[in-house]
Amino acid sequence: MTMDVLPTEFARIAQYFRPLAGPGALALGDDAAVFTPPPGRDLVIAADAMVAGVHFLPNDAPDLVARKLLRTNLSDLAAMGATPLGYLLTVSVPRATDESWFAAFSAGLAADQAEFGLHLLGGDTTSTPGPISLSLTILGTVAPGTALRRNGAKPGDDVWVSGTIGDGALGLLAAKGELQDRNGYLSDRYRLPRPRLALGLALIGIAHAAMDVSDGLVQDLSHICRASGLAAEIHAATIPLSPAARAANRLELCLTGGDDYELLFAAPPTTAEAILAASRATGIAVTRIGTFRAGPAHVTTIGMDGNALSLGFGGWSHL
Amino acid sequence: MTMDVLPTEFARIAQYFRPLAGPGALALGDDAAVFTPPPGRDLVIAADAMVAGVHFLPNDAPDLVARKLLRTNLSDLAAMGATPLGYLLTVSVPRATDESWFAAFSAGLAADQAEFGLHLLGGDTTSTPGPISLSLTILGTVAPGTALRRNGAKPGDDVWVSGTIGDGALGLLAAKGELQDRNGYLSDRYRLPRPRLALGLALIGIAHAAMDVSDGLVQDLSHICRASGLAAEIHAATIPLSPAARAANRLELCLTGGDDYELLFAAPPTTAEAILAASRATGIAVTRIGTFRAGPAHVTTIGMDGNALSLGFGGWSHL
Repeated sequence: MTMDVLPTEFARIAQYFRPLAGPGALALGDDAAVFTPPPGRDLVIAADAMVAGVHFLPNDAPDLVARKLLRTNLSDLAAMGATPLGYLLTVSVPRATDESWFAAFSAGLAADQAEFGLHLLGGDTTSTPGPISLSLTILGTVAPGTALRRNGAKPGDDVWVSGTIGDGALGLLAAKGELQDRNGYLSDRYRLPRPRLALGLALIGIAHAAMDVSDGLVQDLSHICRASGLAAEIHAATIPLSPAARAANRLELCLTGGDDYELLFAAPPTTAEAILAASRATGIAVTRIGTFRAGPAHVTTIGMDGNALSLGFGGWSHL
Repeated sequence: MTMDVLPTEFARIAQYFRPLAGPGALALGDDAAVFTPPPGRDLVIAADAMVAGVHFLPNDAPDLVARKLLRTNLSDLAAMGATPLGYLLTVSVPRATDESWFAAFSAGLAADQAEFGLHLLGGDTTSTPGPISLSLTILGTVAPGTALRRNGAKPGDDVWVSGTIGDGALGLLAAKGELQDRNGYLSDRYRLPRPRLALGLALIGIAHAAMDVSDGLVQDLSHICRASGLAAEIHAATIPLSPAARAANRLELCLTGGDDYELLFAAPPTTAEAILAASRATGIAVTRIGTFRAGPAHVTTIGMDGNALSLGFGGWSHL
C-alpha cells in the first residue's frame, strides 16, 4: 500500500502524513499513487537516503532532518533545471520513537512543501532496530530535451558556482561543537540546504553542464570533467566564501567538504551577462571560479600563492 | 546525483548497479534520471522499505533479499493493475559489507529485471552504523482512469483472492527453523513473493476494488471494507491453502499473517466467468472466499464449525 505500516501505525499515518498528501496520492490509502504526468514535459526522478549518525546528527531537530532530506533531493532537481512535482518517503524509526518526533518531522515537511510547491505521493513507515533511516524519492518535470546534464561542458567554458562554498562542511564542525559559530550561521547552513531551483531553471539553454555540490566542490567538479572529457582549473582566491567561512580559515575543507548544495555549472564566456542577469532575477549569487579546457579529466586548484594545491582526499564521509 | 555515494563506492556503483540501468537512467551518472512518460498512460508509483531483522532475516541470501524488495513493490503495481516501468533504489549497508554481498544483491535484481521487464532508474548507496536498510520506489503505468482502487467494492460483490494464503507467514516460521518445511516450499514462498501482475492487468474493467495481501488477509480485507464503506464475510473453509499450509494446521496464522502478496479483490457475481477466464489466461489460481454487504466496515470470518472466529490482532509485526 502507499503507506504500508504496522497496524499500530495507521493512526500515525492518518495524523501526520495524510495531511501532506496531494493529488494522485489517493489519501495514502491505496497500494500506490496514480497521476497523469503533466503533458509535454519530461519526468525527472531521483532518490537519496539519510541515516542518523551518517547524514545527520542523532539529536538534530526532526523538522530540520525532514527539511534537509527533502531539500537535498530538491537540489538534485535544481541541478537538472527541473521543477518539483511530488515525492515519496520511507521512514524507518526505532519502536521507542515518540509522537513528538513524528509531529515535528511532518511539520518540517509541511513547511517545505509550501515553500517549494510539491506534495507527498506515498511511501512507507517501518520500525528498525538500528538508527533512524530515511529515504526520499523526488519527482520533477522539465521541458523535453532541456534537462541540464554533466556531460555537456566544452573547452573554454567558464566554471561557475552559486552561493558560497564550504559553509556546509564547516557547519557540520560547528554543529558538533568543534568550531565556533557566531549566530549559528554555519550550523544552519549545514542543517538547511538552499536548493537553487530558480537558478537551475534559469540556466536552461544557457549552461552547457550542471550538477549540485554535495560531495565537495573539487570532487564534484571532477565528475563534470569526467562526464565531459575535459580538464578544469579553478582558483582558490575566487571561491565564494561567506564571512564565517573566511573567518574560519579552513580553505582545504571548504574546497573538499560536502553538504554545500550549491549549483556548479559550465557555460561559455559569451553567456556571462545572461548568467549574471539570471542571478539578479533569482536573487542567487553566482561566481566564476575557473575554466574548462581540453585534456584528461582532472581538476587543478590554484592556491592563493599561485601554485597548484595538493588536496588530500581521504575518502570523504558525511560525519 | 543519481547514485550519490562515498567516493570509495563509485567503483561499486559502476560495477554492480550501472549494468542494471536502463533508458533515462543516464548511466546513473547525473543528479537524476530523465525520461519521457509513455504517452496516453497514467503513472503509478509506490515505495517500500525493508530493514534486516524486521522484513528479512539478516542471513537471508542477498539475491533473494533484492528480489523480495523488488517483488513486494511489483505486487503494489499488480494491485493497481499497472505495468512495471522502472525503479529507484536506496541501499544503506554497514561499512564492513563485502563485495560478494553487492554482487549477489545486484544479480538478484538483474534476474528479476529480466523476468518482469523493468530497469533501474537511479538511487543512492550509503553506509549505516545499523542493520542493512533498503528502500525501493517503483514506477508503473496504467491506462488513464482504469487503476484498481480499494474504494470501489459494492454490496453483493464477491470477495476473491489469488493463489494460496498463509504460506508467507508459515514460511517465516520455517525460515527461522520454527516449523518443519518439507522441500523448503514455505520458506521459498516467504522469501520470494510472486507479484500477480498479469492477473491485476486482466482484472481491469472487471474488479470493483483490489489490493495486495501484505499485512494479513483479514486485516487487508478490512482496508477494502473501510475504503468502500462495506462489511465483508469470508468463510475459512474456502480460503485457498497450499498442501504445506494445510499440513501445518495453523489457520489463524494463515488468516492474519503477512507476506502473502496475493491479490484480494471485489467483483460482482456476474463477472465470475470472466474472472475464471482471466485466471486460466494468466495461469494464476483464484478463489471466491466470501461476500461484501452493506453495513459498517467489518470483516466476519466464519470458521470451520459455522461460527464466527475471534481473531486476535496483537499488532502484527514482520519478524
